[in-house]
Amino acid sequence: MTENTLNEKTGITDKLEKDCINTIRFLAVDGVQKANSGHPGMPMEASPLAYLLWTRTMNYNPKNPAWPNRDRFVLSAGHGSMLLYAMLHLTGYGLSLDALKDFRQLGSPTPGHPEYGCAPGVETTTGPLGQGFATGIGMAMAERFLAARFNRPDFPLVNHFTYALVSDGDMMEGISSETASMAGDLGLGKIVYIYLDNKITIEGNTHITFTEDVARRFEAYNWQVQRVDGYDLPAIDAALANARGETSQPSLIIARTHIAWGSPNKQDTPDAHGAPLGDEEILLTKKNCGWPETPTFRVPEDVLSVFRQALDRGEALEKEWHTLYTDYQKKHSDLAQQWETIHKAPDISKLNDILPHFDADQGNIATRKASGQVLAAVKPYLPELVGGSADLAPSNNTYLKGFDEFKESSGPNIHFGIREHGMGAILNGMALSKALIPYGGTFLVFSDYMRPAIRMAALMELPVIYVFTHDSIGLGEDGPTHQPIEHLASLRSIPNTLVVRPADAQETVEAWKLALAHQTGPCALILSRQGLPVIDRKKFASAEGLHKGAYVLADSTDGKPDLILMATGAEVHLIIGAYEQLASRGVGVRIVSIPSWELFDATPEEYRHAVLPPEISTRIAVEAGSPMGWERYTGSQGIIIGMNRFGASAPAKDLFKTFGFTVEAVIEKAEKLLGL
Amino acid sequence: MTENTLNEKTGITDKLEKDCINTIRFLAVDGVQKANSGHPGMPMEASPLAYLLWTRTMNYNPKNPAWPNRDRFVLSAGHGSMLLYAMLHLTGYGLSLDALKDFRQLGSPTPGHPEYGCAPGVETTTGPLGQGFATGIGMAMAERFLAARFNRPDFPLVNHFTYALVSDGDMMEGISSETASMAGDLGLGKIVYIYLDNKITIEGNTHITFTEDVARRFEAYNWQVQRVDGYDLPAIDAALANARGETSQPSLIIARTHIAWGSPNKQDTPDAHGAPLGDEEILLTKKNCGWPETPTFRVPEDVLSVFRQALDRGEALEKEWHTLYTDYQKKHSDLAQQWETIHKAPDISKLNDILPHFDADQGNIATRKASGQVLAAVKPYLPELVGGSADLAPSNNTYLKGFDEFKESSGPNIHFGIREHGMGAILNGMALSKALIPYGGTFLVFSDYMRPAIRMAALMELPVIYVFTHDSIGLGEDGPTHQPIEHLASLRSIPNTLVVRPADAQETVEAWKLALAHQTGPCALILSRQGLPVIDRKKFASAEGLHKGAYVLADSTDGKPDLILMATGAEVHLIIGAYEQLASRGVGVRIVSIPSWELFDATPEEYRHAVLPPEISTRIAVEAGSPMGWERYTGSQGIIIGMNRFGASAPAKDLFKTFGFTVEAVIEKAEKLLGL
Repeated sequence: MTENTLNEKTGITDKLEKDCINTIRFLAVDGVQKANSGHPGMPMEASPLAYLLWTRTMNYNPKNPAWPNRDRFVLSAGHGSMLLYAMLHLTGYGLSLDALKDFRQLGSPTPGHPEYGCAPGVETTTGPLGQGFATGIGMAMAERFLAARFNRPDFPLVNHFTYALVSDGDMMEGISSETASMAGDLGLGKIVYIYLDNKITIEGNTHITFTEDVARRFEAYNWQVQRVDGYDLPAIDAALANARGETSQPSLIIARTHIAWGSPNKQDTPDAHGAPLGDEEILLTKKNCGWPETPTFRVPEDVLSVFRQALDRGEALEKEWHTLYTDYQKKHSDLAQQWETIHKAPDISKLNDILPHFDADQGNIATRKASGQVLAAVKPYLPELVGGSADLAPSNNTYLKGFDEFKESSGPNIHFGIREHGMGAILNGMALSKALIPYGGTFLVFSDYMRPAIRMAALMELPVIYVFTHDSIGLGEDGPTHQPIEHLASLRSIPNTLVVRPADAQETVEAWKLALAHQTGPCALILSRQGLPVIDRKKFASAEGLHKGAYVLADSTDGKPDLILMATGAEVHLIIGAYEQLASRGVGVRIVSIPSWELFDATPEEYRHAVLPPEISTRIAVEAGSPMGWERYTGSQGIIIGMNRFGASAPAKDLFKTFGFTVEAVIEKAEKLLGL
Repeated sequence: MTENTLNEKTGITDKLEKDCINTIRFLAVDGVQKANSGHPGMPMEASPLAYLLWTRTMNYNPKNPAWPNRDRFVLSAGHGSMLLYAMLHLTGYGLSLDALKDFRQLGSPTPGHPEYGCAPGVETTTGPLGQGFATGIGMAMAERFLAARFNRPDFPLVNHFTYALVSDGDMMEGISSETASMAGDLGLGKIVYIYLDNKITIEGNTHITFTEDVARRFEAYNWQVQRVDGYDLPAIDAALANARGETSQPSLIIARTHIAWGSPNKQDTPDAHGAPLGDEEILLTKKNCGWPETPTFRVPEDVLSVFRQALDRGEALEKEWHTLYTDYQKKHSDLAQQWETIHKAPDISKLNDILPHFDADQGNIATRKASGQVLAAVKPYLPELVGGSADLAPSNNTYLKGFDEFKESSGPNIHFGIREHGMGAILNGMALSKALIPYGGTFLVFSDYMRPAIRMAALMELPVIYVFTHDSIGLGEDGPTHQPIEHLASLRSIPNTLVVRPADAQETVEAWKLALAHQTGPCALILSRQGLPVIDRKKFASAEGLHKGAYVLADSTDGKPDLILMATGAEVHLIIGAYEQLASRGVGVRIVSIPSWELFDATPEEYRHAVLPPEISTRIAVEAGSPMGWERYTGSQGIIIGMNRFGASAPAKDLFKTFGFTVEAVIEKAEKLLGL
């Protein structure tokens, strides 16, 4: 099928309209060719859709990509990044033509896949398939939450759509299924996703593995589903209007499209997916599409004028909104104040008075329970706090008692269902509102299910909070399938991810303060199932030391210990026990709580050496997880008491004994190390 | 709804039948109560279904759980493990009543969730939701593959069904969507899954988040869908017969069931999901169900007789099959020989002659390409080798040219689609055949998507091979979303997972030999996108050193080096370059290739000290990934050249330079360390 027949069929006959579409198409083609790397097929395929969305459909202001009430656009098929860059350039976001020419080069704002924070107007990082689809659901949930909280009669302060272009890959990934099911259940009517049904994936035609009835599947999820020819502009326009009109269901528009649309030899083939067209085919394609062979990166004046109308339109839209907001400030000053507040980082200092405080005489408290108490305490002061669990709320202690349900009344309590991966991406989408503090809970072992979404949070520097409970073999009888071993190590290995494993209820309070204040990336709170003593802070150092990542809990009387014992979380109580017994025998022991490697590693060397003096090489680390990486702190001479194998199903006390997590076992190792 | 009304409605009126069902139900109830931990609700709910499946539906031989042609049963809702244990005890698998009484205790064969290898008859480890569902799809694929390969007219050697009990959680997890789509696409007619539609999850009624139309969704996937009352035995029987009769589609039977069926106060509530009923409620339930209050763990003689008929039936079934097989051996001796062979570990020594050999004069070869050449070479000799890629076959070099497609003709080439997680579990299901060597490819960065399935392979000790290519920032322009950083560290942290990153084409050959021979867990091959020189083995040590995990490539002339440089994969070429330059300057350098930490750590201390002599503390490790854990080999004094941040989108050479992965940068660090 050639361009010409397509044009005849679909009626893109207006010369200027054709030029607009060709401009998008060939900016992408030329950009990929110049980089000699990238994916031209998708931008070519979707150029008419992009033209429509940006010129007729979406509300946005190129001069202020942060305007809160803009429509969101997600390029879930992130490999087609040049499509997005072309649109951002053409509509006046301040992304220069030179930046497009610098596609995929070091330091350019136009990386291979769209990255949040690189070019203005990129709403979220995409590329790993399914992430964009699912993150968009979170954006729409943020919209609903904020609208319910802030909109008042005549004041639709928050009222925008979330659009996405999604691909076969997005449809196949499980994360999309999870979040599509959830979006349908919630009836998120302001979602408008366009599925580029091009029948082609990298390995060939989709019939090799993907023959399901996508429409029927999405109808089963309670989505409105429409089918259109991806090149029939009036039909697409109508479908988009229908989609926006259906406010009780998310909408999927299945657009039959053709990868590398217009390329005589590569259209409808996988060849155009991940490689430049090549100079020869580019010439043939330009000829076929009636586009001059030169110059490359051609943007005719009249075409630019069409697109740049977005500037005036956007300015007017935002101005209108600001007028509304000014009136809102007068009529609903409290809400306006709150609106301003939640768009800033939370002021944690204000929470100090209302946070619970735990003392040693309170008996054993699981850190997951302390965490629940912190949540209950802070929620009344943090309207922007919103979250839930992947069907483990009673275990994760994540439910906000006394607050509304999200589904029923757009309240802060979300039931994510047994959809950990979807939860991870939805949290990202909500965090991208820059107005919410989203949190999500599951067992630590199931952090694996949401790992790709955690990585996206880290990459986008989003302040998402994970409540990972049941953090070791301490969960007991559920057995090795539910007992995390490698999870602390593997979370710590993700760049820009703050992992915090508090040792007791009071460290948990400090950990939450840290998590709420942390604005540049995700924070994973690692919490115990089992009850733990509250450390007696009259005898041991203050839990505020947590903010330095590691701190000396207690030291030998002369400050020159023979031995350093270090641990995290529940295992801190083992080194406290060992310290007390060894100290009574006259052994000089320092004990160090290390709730967060990342924080400790970021402290000045002076502090690190003060906590772990280089001259003391007799060191033992205790953590009921993989020993991976502990050598950093124990050094070559030290001992790591960790788990080099999977756990087992048994009561926790039996497991701790079997695997050497007892005070006696720590003392035995200490004696060995010291030659006692 | 009480038990009695249910009975009246559903016609479980035969006294013995009722007793059989009650026996199952109360073994589970009593087992959970005795352990004071576990999930009674699901076994109670599904007891009639289990009764039917084991007494009338499934073909199995309790005396030989390894009989190749048995029907497979997967308890995807693994938390209901006591249901499975009860059935295995009752039908005579040799799981004692004492073992049931020892539920969830250390060392018992009855762990909290079913674990492959613990009790005879447990086909796969389940618990993490979705894994069982997806693994069963792999089992059915193994059945189809083996049937096509070995069945001959009048010799249906391989002809069995895969049954599963699946829960709401399984339906919500994305991995199930991925594999359900794939099963429908493949028309896997020998799958019979029963969905326990009980409307209850941990957080409450499913209407809080799960209101999709499951039937319609599965019809969209091309499944046969039937609805039954989960207590109407004749109706279930008929549905099962229909399901088996439909051989071109997988079958889903949606059984309306009631969690904690029969419990007056806990039926249809989340309370009975994850906690014992409690003594009082147990008494009420037994009363309600017409079951004596004592003794606990009651198994009436006549009930046991009913279930133990499975022994005679199973023996007869297997005997019949063995008769068939004996005839098959005569008529198709070559095939029978092959059948025997593939049920044993592959004899790798036989492959030596046919494996490719790479020399330094062959120029640069990406290890992913060398891997593809190995696959092509060995496949003709390994009929049991089967696999593919998650839509990246051209990049992963995983396609077996000249061999059949799985979908078209049950050949070894599988198109997994963009479903990494599903692929991981399907590989597990195929490995559980104990006859196949399954492999699956994707980019290393997307190993995150399949991590929960990798963990299951490690836990089950399954010989699954992962082909993870594009193993560092060396993939270049696709940028940080596609560049693995933390993935080596996080794979290494999983217990029982062999991670191998070969340095060149010849190490890749050795790595494949290793992977094929490794029978006790998964093996991840970590391969480069970019071309790498083939190491000149006349100058440097043989690639066979790979089997020890680490080996000295070259040493200082006196064997007493001033410096040890170590690296993996592509970065080995940097230390070779540094070695050559430093050696020419008279600096004594040892260079060590460390393709596998797990293998090296398992060598005797003597060997480890020979490779990395403790007295030499001037050490540098180079790996273009997270430095996590490298301190194990560099010691406290050493330097790690790694990536502490995400990558960037740019040509690979620019990235390597920017992030310090050049010969010059290594030399600079060496000079610093040595004070040169």
